[in-house]
Amino acid sequence: MAILPIDGGRYGTPEMREVFGDQRKVDHQVRIEGAVAAAQGRLKVIPLRAAQSIARAASPGEVTVARIAELEAKSDHDTAALVEALAEKCTLYARPWIHYGLTSNDLVDTSNSMQMRDALDIIAPKVSELARMLAETALKYADLPAVGRTHGQHASIMSFGLKFANWAEEMAEHGRRLGQTRDRVIICKTLGVVGTGSLMGRAAVDVQREVAEELGMIPAAVATQVVPRERYAEYVFALALIGSTLEKMAVEIRNLQRTEIGEVAERFAEGQMGSSAVPVKRNPIKSERITSLSRLLRSQLGVALENVPLWHERDLSNSANERFIIPTSSIILDEMLQTALGILPRLVINRDRILENMERTRGQIYAEFVMDALIRKGATRMEAYRNVQRVAFRAAKTGAHFRDAISMDGAISGSLDPQDIEKIFDAGSHLGASQEIIRGVAGSIIPAESS
Amino acid sequence: MAILPIDGGRYGTPEMREVFGDQRKVDHQVRIEGAVAAAQGRLKVIPLRAAQSIARAASPGEVTVARIAELEAKSDHDTAALVEALAEKCTLYARPWIHYGLTSNDLVDTSNSMQMRDALDIIAPKVSELARMLAETALKYADLPAVGRTHGQHASIMSFGLKFANWAEEMAEHGRRLGQTRDRVIICKTLGVVGTGSLMGRAAVDVQREVAEELGMIPAAVATQVVPRERYAEYVFALALIGSTLEKMAVEIRNLQRTEIGEVAERFAEGQMGSSAVPVKRNPIKSERITSLSRLLRSQLGVALENVPLWHERDLSNSANERFIIPTSSIILDEMLQTALGILPRLVINRDRILENMERTRGQIYAEFVMDALIRKGATRMEAYRNVQRVAFRAAKTGAHFRDAISMDGAISGSLDPQDIEKIFDAGSHLGASQEIIRGVAGSIIPAESS
Amino acid sequence: MAILPIDGGRYGTPEMREVFGDQRKVDHQVRIEGAVAAAQGRLKVIPLRAAQSIARAASPGEVTVARIAELEAKSDHDTAALVEALAEKCTLYARPWIHYGLTSNDLVDTSNSMQMRDALDIIAPKVSELARMLAETALKYADLPAVGRTHGQHASIMSFGLKFANWAEEMAEHGRRLGQTRDRVIICKTLGVVGTGSLMGRAAVDVQREVAEELGMIPAAVATQVVPRERYAEYVFALALIGSTLEKMAVEIRNLQRTEIGEVAERFAEGQMGSSAVPVKRNPIKSERITSLSRLLRSQLGVALENVPLWHERDLSNSANERFIIPTSSIILDEMLQTALGILPRLVINRDRILENMERTRGQIYAEFVMDALIRKGATRMEAYRNVQRVAFRAAKTGAHFRDAISMDGAISGSLDPQDIEKIFDAGSHLGASQEIIRGVAGSIIPAESS
Amino acid sequence: MAILPIDGGRYGTPEMREVFGDQRKVDHQVRIEGAVAAAQGRLKVIPLRAAQSIARAASPGEVTVARIAELEAKSDHDTAALVEALAEKCTLYARPWIHYGLTSNDLVDTSNSMQMRDALDIIAPKVSELARMLAETALKYADLPAVGRTHGQHASIMSFGLKFANWAEEMAEHGRRLGQTRDRVIICKTLGVVGTGSLMGRAAVDVQREVAEELGMIPAAVATQVVPRERYAEYVFALALIGSTLEKMAVEIRNLQRTEIGEVAERFAEGQMGSSAVPVKRNPIKSERITSLSRLLRSQLGVALENVPLWHERDLSNSANERFIIPTSSIILDEMLQTALGILPRLVINRDRILENMERTRGQIYAEFVMDALIRKGATRMEAYRNVQRVAFRAAKTGAHFRDAISMDGAISGSLDPQDIEKIFDAGSHLGASQEIIRGVAGSIIPAESS
Repeated sequence: MAILPIDGGRYGTPEMREVFGDQRKVDHQVRIEGAVAAAQGRLKVIPLRAAQSIARAASPGEVTVARIAELEAKSDHDTAALVEALAEKCTLYARPWIHYGLTSNDLVDTSNSMQMRDALDIIAPKVSELARMLAETALKYADLPAVGRTHGQHASIMSFGLKFANWAEEMAEHGRRLGQTRDRVIICKTLGVVGTGSLMGRAAVDVQREVAEELGMIPAAVATQVVPRERYAEYVFALALIGSTLEKMAVEIRNLQRTEIGEVAERFAEGQMGSSAVPVKRNPIKSERITSLSRLLRSQLGVALENVPLWHERDLSNSANERFIIPTSSIILDEMLQTALGILPRLVINRDRILENMERTRGQIYAEFVMDALIRKGATRMEAYRNVQRVAFRAAKTGAHFRDAISMDGAISGSLDPQDIEKIFDAGSHLGASQEIIRGVAGSIIPAESS
Repeated sequence: MAILPIDGGRYGTPEMREVFGDQRKVDHQVRIEGAVAAAQGRLKVIPLRAAQSIARAASPGEVTVARIAELEAKSDHDTAALVEALAEKCTLYARPWIHYGLTSNDLVDTSNSMQMRDALDIIAPKVSELARMLAETALKYADLPAVGRTHGQHASIMSFGLKFANWAEEMAEHGRRLGQTRDRVIICKTLGVVGTGSLMGRAAVDVQREVAEELGMIPAAVATQVVPRERYAEYVFALALIGSTLEKMAVEIRNLQRTEIGEVAERFAEGQMGSSAVPVKRNPIKSERITSLSRLLRSQLGVALENVPLWHERDLSNSANERFIIPTSSIILDEMLQTALGILPRLVINRDRILENMERTRGQIYAEFVMDALIRKGATRMEAYRNVQRVAFRAAKTGAHFRDAISMDGAISGSLDPQDIEKIFDAGSHLGASQEIIRGVAGSIIPAESS
Repeated sequence: MAILPIDGGRYGTPEMREVFGDQRKVDHQVRIEGAVAAAQGRLKVIPLRAAQSIARAASPGEVTVARIAELEAKSDHDTAALVEALAEKCTLYARPWIHYGLTSNDLVDTSNSMQMRDALDIIAPKVSELARMLAETALKYADLPAVGRTHGQHASIMSFGLKFANWAEEMAEHGRRLGQTRDRVIICKTLGVVGTGSLMGRAAVDVQREVAEELGMIPAAVATQVVPRERYAEYVFALALIGSTLEKMAVEIRNLQRTEIGEVAERFAEGQMGSSAVPVKRNPIKSERITSLSRLLRSQLGVALENVPLWHERDLSNSANERFIIPTSSIILDEMLQTALGILPRLVINRDRILENMERTRGQIYAEFVMDALIRKGATRMEAYRNVQRVAFRAAKTGAHFRDAISMDGAISGSLDPQDIEKIFDAGSHLGASQEIIRGVAGSIIPAESS
Repeated sequence: MAILPIDGGRYGTPEMREVFGDQRKVDHQVRIEGAVAAAQGRLKVIPLRAAQSIARAASPGEVTVARIAELEAKSDHDTAALVEALAEKCTLYARPWIHYGLTSNDLVDTSNSMQMRDALDIIAPKVSELARMLAETALKYADLPAVGRTHGQHASIMSFGLKFANWAEEMAEHGRRLGQTRDRVIICKTLGVVGTGSLMGRAAVDVQREVAEELGMIPAAVATQVVPRERYAEYVFALALIGSTLEKMAVEIRNLQRTEIGEVAERFAEGQMGSSAVPVKRNPIKSERITSLSRLLRSQLGVALENVPLWHERDLSNSANERFIIPTSSIILDEMLQTALGILPRLVINRDRILENMERTRGQIYAEFVMDALIRKGATRMEAYRNVQRVAFRAAKTGAHFRDAISMDGAISGSLDPQDIEKIFDAGSHLGASQEIIRGVAGSIIPAESS
């Protein structure tokens, strides 16, 4: 019986689900025990012979989730069960030295770090791929003039590609931010019950350094019983912020796909059933889903921040909720990225509607350029503004095209000759620096990605 | 492979998990289809013969989750699959009339309401039970004097039972609030695609009223395609607020169970393994879990509020995240309530430590009563304050008991004779109105609960 | 030098700003001191003569903010300064009896309750007025057919008034919810340092009851040093939820005011300066401001919930942030309500565009009604669906009007005669139960409001 | 009349308040206009003579807040008023060229960036100073053994200095994070109404680059009308996360200052009035205030994230709330840092209580070391555990000191001789790697700070 839609299979790519499945966690934790024993053996914290037996038993596949579950049913303590399952594979002599000087949270936190690292290894390439895809789309539409809208209103003319360039740049920035976050998150901690190294004594720092090296992690410079939860909050934030950019893209697609605007549309799958009510209706449901999941993703962050101020050397108040927020934020963002990567290359971009929409205000969108031309001919800003406004309002009332109204207005046509006017009402001449900007953004992303 | 700890079985009572399992949802939705068809038949919106066939097919157990899953695999649309599965049980004649005039969300929202109702039917009695249990504990400890603490510091003397009375009253208030919330949440909506009743025409309002009556719900006074999400936000809030009170109780237990305070302790189960590090250590892990889950519960609320301003007659941006927040908030609160109901009756309350702790400041906690006695003997407030403070600081420095220091201080003992002093240093005489307050609270809860 | 825009005067009605100004707080607190002394005198807790002097000194206008500020500069304790300022107006005899048995928070929390009550007295009538205004607008446009949109797409036909009816109903519900919240928020608490009544002994409960009665408040059934913060969280939630409904309205106005939709527009003030770029541009800036402030309002709620689990009989961790969240949530919601009350009666509703927009899909919006007609003529649902879809897609491709395409399609026009078709394509005949629903909603609001 | 406690003067250092005062904003915006005109003159976008006049008028002190306020009263548009006030200082010839090709948000966003930069210039050195101070305190107490607590329970022995080392390291990490955030936040954007550079044409990119250089900012690689709000969210997050670490420290101080624990105390100011109820009571009110403000600070983040997905080339829904969240988060964090910098050097650390507290469990805290010694003598883990637990429970029951109980237990004293036992019960020998860890952390912070 499925309850939540992650376990139910509705959301989550297979690779990311596996990262947070129980077997992966066990594998990580057993590997930590093995690496700790090996280092402790080398550093003479425990007998070398014991260390070798433990390290051997900690090979992949030796300890299974099933066996741990059986043992946990008796002890009601998951780490104890894991240690016991591992002990079953060791010599009698070695058994007392398993988990020596460690505390449960050395396994929990270090395996958390490993899972977050695994998740970042899935997420980061998708972020890069999306940046590249957006940059290419920006280049493709760099020369296409389109309406720019502010406050939901037609505001000016721009390159249609500029929309994608904005997203591409932000996605590339996310890539850089993820790298910085990663360096603070992949912490290995084996300092025992209150962060002193406990029974390992002064050798504890060396043990931890060797374990970290073996696992490809960064040793904790200092810790309580746990790794500082600031790091987890940063992880969740970095993910939620990527989600917000995806949401920004999704909201734009939803807005541009409106029946009245129609500039883009999510590709409709072959054979996908249309609305029975309105057969030609195309709902941007993938973008709507991204929007919805972004809210969920964002909500994990408050929890992560509240977990920071634990009492003394730790209390347990982070534990239960981290079982939710770390997997959920990772799986949900990955789902959103995957969805975005599916929408983008198939996005229908309707050039005709884009060009038609520029004509919706019947030329009024060119008013700023008329004003500029008048000023350049010597009018004061106020004169120019008054004349343009007067003609614009009259045209709006009569339904006349603004270009015609301009041409027929003495005050304005006295200053601007027909060629001037024709040039003003040419959308393609008002892209400003759009193309330079797009090329700048794309240039910084595409080589970096493809080389 | 379990990912999140609800599906994994770690959190969630069986009864609440069942409410949000997929079979319950299907049963609710099929029942709605049946009730709609029956009403439409009676009101001549669809042929009576069709209505009867549909209503019959909509009997419990006819449509299974398994069959729907098969059909959904083809159509990729869950409501369509449910309608088709139901159609398989109807006469050919009746089939076109299934789901007549409805939209998917008539099923989704109405079954959401039914699930929330079912959840409230589980939660509300637990809230009442907890209120009663707390009120009884308050009564039991009404006469036990204890330290009252503000800012983490010993502040005054109070009845130990008063702590429980505070929680009891708030829990009783939650019971009343849940009732009010329920009336706004159990909405039945069958008004079709944009809330007009659609193909049912003017009869739609009557259809909805009859369906609501049949289901024991309240008909929507008005709707878009969906029920207003304000109602869902109120539901989540009411639950999160109960969670906050449970968290308040949990934090108090954790604080009173500190090694240095030791006034209460969660009962340690027989045979439960102690910490191997410190064998007598008793961790308040249930209360810590409540604290942790409260953060998670609270975080659902932001999502619910962001879902309110849907576009036009609805967009889909609430859909994906509601699959998480409605079950999660219900299941998590229920888990927390169940945990609290388990902690309370087994809570170890250590009278000796409670009485000992009153002596921690070596009598200084009685200073306010000394001051009051001096004023009642005619001293000005400032004189009294200066004398008390002087003696208190000296006693703190020398380690003397404040009572002795008072007795030996001429300025004070001149005004207060030994009997006065003895009475002042009697904890039991400083409970103020504690007992009246406790009886008042308990009186309003226990009869209401037990009668 | 203004920093935040509330003190800077940008947001906040004068009446609500006054509620949270420092003088109002002082007036409330002095009044509480007076009422407590009077009750204590009557109940023989303090000498009657002292009580009378205090009660007299506690008359409005006797104690000023300025004097308190002077005294606070010395003692650095605001309650002490207020007590001292009050003492200056009392007889020497009475002075030690001011604030007898009270703690600072008796003043703080009870005056908080009084401010929240004052705020609710401003907010509730505006909510009612808005409900009434919306209900009247709904009635006014009950007969106007309009496009209903889901997923941003044209979905069906509805009454334009139905939009307003949805908002009216939710606003009326807010009115009822505010009443319930009020009963839990207007708490009077005078039970001293740890809620026992302290030096007042058993009389404390009577003192508090009489004070509450005098102030028109509800006595706390039980308290710690403070009133339970659950109540504050409920207050903030009730306000934030109203804000979410206002945001829903604002987002709808912004969407309907889009250049491409143009169904409504915020009234442009006489002489208001248009955009110099596009003179006819009309930005829905009031609705955008409501949207923006709703996010701010909503964010106060997390703080209020985190304040619930205070340690023991209280810690101070609620104090600093409540100085922000209570005034901010009250002032911001009131500003939003005031803005909405300003937008609504002046909202330009463009009937022509509403009717034009129904034609945007060139008749395809009527497809569901064609299908229904075919089924009613005996077609199976699948036949009807296939035929309608086929014709719809072809019409979309060729640009033909769907009505013409239907008429010219043999498979369909064989079943439907011209009158049938004409009736199908009559928007006014597809309002379903819109008008009944609107009248139902309006009927429940308007009499209640106007009588 | 003060309403919120920032404008009221209760919270906020003078230097940070000035950053967000209105004059600073005007100065920044005028400076931007001057830099833009100068660059446009150089790049021949506007006449050089006009550019020189504008750049001259844009000198500090020429345009005043007062004059802008007068003009805004008429136009109701703040940017228009600023441009007009600047125009008054220019030649007639130059006036039409002020603000050429710009949009209001070029000023708003770029001055926002400048304010955030100014705020970071205040915050970053305080973060560094705090890191250094914490590192020094860690070193000072590196050799002092203390109780380590988990779940609020005595768990093991550690160096008291380790607590400060944990905070020091995290504070140093915040310093690095702030540097990374700064590089993404100090963006200069002068690309006009929809980010194309508008009337400046292809020169817009060069204009922006030169302006950014002049202002010491980073030019926007691409923009809509506004700078991406992801950057603002990162700014707020970086601040909120620092706040969470401060909260962690504050909660620890509050916990260690409890009457029953008494290991630390905030210094009581000379002449500060004690509680009249309990004269020796010392409340950690500064730490409580940090806790309270952290909640408020954290709550700004949800707003910042919701502002990311603006519609199209921008909507105004970020505007009103950013007037609150950017100043509030900056001022509040700075207040918290200042408070922490005040608490730390004056923190009373009570060595006697720290040592006494280790004895609270009457030696049971040493149990893990007894077990370890038994294992090292050849016992199996299970034998050792059973023996230790047996003796520990009996000692707890009888009130015996664990050391004595061990010595008198045949099973244990058979394996451990008196010298072994003496060594086990020596706290100083159980600091593990505490000192190495502390020196490592301090070494990475102090040279960096002091050299």
